[in-house]
Amino acid sequence: MEKIIASIITIGDELLIGQVIDTNSAFISQELNKIGVWVKRRVAVGDSREEIIRALNEESRDTNIIIITGGLGPTADDITKPVLCEYFGGKLVMNEEVRKHLVYLFEQVFRRPLIERNLKQAELPEVCTVLPNARGTAPGMWFEKDGKVFVSLPGVPHEMKGLITNEVLPRLQKTFSMPFIAHRTLLTAGIGESFIAETIKHWEEKLPEHLKLAYLPNYGMVRLRITGWSTDKAKLENELNTEFAQLKILVQEWLVTDEDHTLPMALSKLLRLKNKTMTTAESCTGGYIAHLITAIPGASNIYKGSIISYDNEIKIKELKVSPATLQKAGAVSEEVVKEMAAAVLMKMNTDYALAVSGIMGPDGGSPEKPVGTVWVAAGDRNKLVTQKFQFRFDRDRNIEMTATQALNLLRKFIVEHA
Amino acid sequence: MEKIIASIITIGDELLIGQVIDTNSAFISQELNKIGVWVKRRVAVGDSREEIIRALNEESRDTNIIIITGGLGPTADDITKPVLCEYFGGKLVMNEEVRKHLVYLFEQVFRRPLIERNLKQAELPEVCTVLPNARGTAPGMWFEKDGKVFVSLPGVPHEMKGLITNEVLPRLQKTFSMPFIAHRTLLTAGIGESFIAETIKHWEEKLPEHLKLAYLPNYGMVRLRITGWSTDKAKLENELNTEFAQLKILVQEWLVTDEDHTLPMALSKLLRLKNKTMTTAESCTGGYIAHLITAIPGASNIYKGSIISYDNEIKIKELKVSPATLQKAGAVSEEVVKEMAAAVLMKMNTDYALAVSGIMGPDGGSPEKPVGTVWVAAGDRNKLVTQKFQFRFDRDRNIEMTATQALNLLRKFIVEHA
Repeated sequence: MEKIIASIITIGDELLIGQVIDTNSAFISQELNKIGVWVKRRVAVGDSREEIIRALNEESRDTNIIIITGGLGPTADDITKPVLCEYFGGKLVMNEEVRKHLVYLFEQVFRRPLIERNLKQAELPEVCTVLPNARGTAPGMWFEKDGKVFVSLPGVPHEMKGLITNEVLPRLQKTFSMPFIAHRTLLTAGIGESFIAETIKHWEEKLPEHLKLAYLPNYGMVRLRITGWSTDKAKLENELNTEFAQLKILVQEWLVTDEDHTLPMALSKLLRLKNKTMTTAESCTGGYIAHLITAIPGASNIYKGSIISYDNEIKIKELKVSPATLQKAGAVSEEVVKEMAAAVLMKMNTDYALAVSGIMGPDGGSPEKPVGTVWVAAGDRNKLVTQKFQFRFDRDRNIEMTATQALNLLRKFIVEHA
Repeated sequence: MEKIIASIITIGDELLIGQVIDTNSAFISQELNKIGVWVKRRVAVGDSREEIIRALNEESRDTNIIIITGGLGPTADDITKPVLCEYFGGKLVMNEEVRKHLVYLFEQVFRRPLIERNLKQAELPEVCTVLPNARGTAPGMWFEKDGKVFVSLPGVPHEMKGLITNEVLPRLQKTFSMPFIAHRTLLTAGIGESFIAETIKHWEEKLPEHLKLAYLPNYGMVRLRITGWSTDKAKLENELNTEFAQLKILVQEWLVTDEDHTLPMALSKLLRLKNKTMTTAESCTGGYIAHLITAIPGASNIYKGSIISYDNEIKIKELKVSPATLQKAGAVSEEVVKEMAAAVLMKMNTDYALAVSGIMGPDGGSPEKPVGTVWVAAGDRNKLVTQKFQFRFDRDRNIEMTATQALNLLRKFIVEHA
C-alpha cells in the first residue's frame, strides 16, 4: 500500500508579518496522522492570487491531499474563495443551506444585522462539495482534481477544528485506503538531549527501518517519540510495544510519563489516581502554575485554589511570611518559599502545595540574585523539599521554566513520598 | 528600489506531525519586517535530505534571503548541517571558537560531561560564515550563493532570537539596501469583523495602492493593521499618520488601543499612567487573568496579588462569599462575582478588582447554565459593574474568551470612571 501524503497551505498576510502564530497546522497534522496520512510539507503564503496558485500547483505535485486554511472571511483581504473558483473552474453560486445557516447565526446567535457582505459567504464554487460549518459563517469546500483532494477551511481555530473532525476526516477515510501509523511517546525531565542520545545509542541503532525516533526538547524537558508505519497493524503495535518497553527502562531515571501527556497532565493524573489535592502559592509565576493545572478538564477534583502573592505585603498578610525572614533572606529565598508553602497548605486545606519566588526579569536582578534566580518549595504537611534554579534570558521563558520545574518537583515529591 | 524578499524554511519532523507549534517563524517575520524585508512564504519540511534540498531550490527561486531554522541538534534526526554542506559545497571543518564555547558551556554552565556527540557541533561547513550562538551549542551559519543569502539557525527559540537580533539583522542591513516598511495597528473589542468592514468601507476603498489594510480577528477582538511600503520614509510616515487618524475616528467606539499592544498591555499601561493597582478573584479562569497581567514586565507597579477560589469552600473562606448566596444564586451568578470582587478589593488593598466565575466545560453545564456561561464583575470601592457572557465550544477557548472579556470590562470601567 502506498503512503497517503498531505500538504497544508495556510493563507494570510498576518502569518507572514508574524502577527499571529499558526496553531492550526499542528492540529491538522496531528489529526491527519491519526488516520494514517503523512504530512510532508506545510506552506504559508500571503493573500495574493499568484502565491495561492503557485502553492496549489507545487503542493499538489506529489501529494494526495491538500488542506488549505484561511482567507475565507467576509473582508476585502480574504481572496481564497475567488481564487479557488478560478483554479477549479466554474462560477460562484448561492448555496441555500449556507444562506439559511447565516440567517440563523446572525438572528439567533450573534444578534447582529446580517449585511450584504456576510451573505456573500453563502456564494460558493459550483464544482465543490460544501462542508457545513456549524460553528461559524464560512463553510468548508471539498474539491477533487486529478485524483487528488483539495479541502479549503476557515482559519478560525475552533471552526477549522469542528470541520476537520466532523467532515474532513470521515470523508478522507472513505476516499483513500490508508496504511497504519502509530506513535509511542514518553516525557523526560532533568537530562539533556545529547546525554539521552548517548544513553540510548545502542538501542536506537538497532531500531528497524520503519520505526523512527525523534527528540523533542522543550523548557528543560525532552520528549521522545517513536513513529511506526505499516499495513500490518497488529505486527506494528507489537514491535512498538517491545521497543517502547526497552526505551522506558533505559530512561527510567528521568521518566515523567510514558503517555503523550504534558507535565501538568501527568501531575493531574497522578493526583487523581491517589485522590489527593494540591494548591499553589505563587509569586513570580503570577498564577501561571495554577492556570496550567486548571486548564486541564476536571481540575476541580484535584485543585481548590491558590494565593498569588506578588507583593511582599501580600506574602505577609495572606501567607504569614515573617517580615523578619523577608528582611533577612529576601523574598527570593529558601526560607520564604517554605513559609509560603506551609501557609498555603493550611489555608487551602489540601494534601500538597507548591510555592515559588523568583526574579523573572528584565528588571529586579542583583549581583547576588541575578535575573532567573528562583526558589521552589514542594511538599505536604510532614515534609517540604526545596530547590534553587538559575535560569537565564527572557521573562516569558523564565516563567515557563519556573512553572515546569516547580510542577516536576512536586510530581517527584509525590512519587517518592507515596 | 527593489523589494527585498525573504522566505523561511523550518526543518523538523516534529512540525509535520504537529507535536510542536512553530512560534519561530512569527518572530523572524516580525524582525525582518522591521528592517524592511518582506516575507513572502514560509515552508516547513521534515528531516529529509530530499525535502530540504527541494525547499532550498524552490524558496531561493524568487527571493533574496532564505532563513532556515531547526535540525541542528546533536542527535541523529538532525541532518540540516550535512545537507547544507552538500548543497553549498566544501567539507565540514572543526571551528576552534565554537569548540572553545562548547567546552565553556558544558564545564561552566550545564556542568555536564562534554561528549563526542556534542563536540561534533563545532564541525561546520568551510564555506559558511559562522555566527556565534552565545545562548547555546549550535552556531548559526551564513552562506552566500548567486547573490542570495542563506542563514541557518538553531530551532530553540531563545537561541534563534539571540542570533537574529545580534547577528543576522545587522549583517542583512549591511548586505542589502532596503526600502522602508511601516505599520499602524489598532485593537477593537465588541464589534465583528464584517461590521467593521462595513463601517470603514468608504475609507478603505480610497486607500492608496501602497497602503494595505488587514483584519486580524482573535478571541472576540479585531486588530486592524495598515501596512505601507516606500523608499520615501517621511512621505510614507505622513500618509500613514493621516490615514490612521481617520481610521481611529471611524472605530472610536470600539477602540481598545491605537498601539500594537495586546489588551493586557493596554490595561497595564492605563493603570501605570494613573498610578493605580488592580487585583483579581478568579474561579473558572484559575489564575490565567493574573498570569496575563504578570507576564508583562514591571507588573509589580500595578498588581499585588490574587485569590484563586476554584472551589466554593475557598470562595466562602477566603472571599467571604455568603453560603446563602451560593446556595440561592449558584457559584456562577452576578451576586457571587460581586461579592468576590468586593472582598478581593479589600483583601489586596488595590484600586480596582476583577472577579470571574463560569463554566468552562467540557463538564459542569446544565440546561439553565450551559457550558460557556460566565459572570464577570469589575470596579472599584464605589462601584461594581457586571456582565454575563455566553461562550460556546471548548475549554481552552472559553478560558481565553473569559480572560479577554473580563480585562476589557475592567479597562472600560477605568476609562469611563476616571
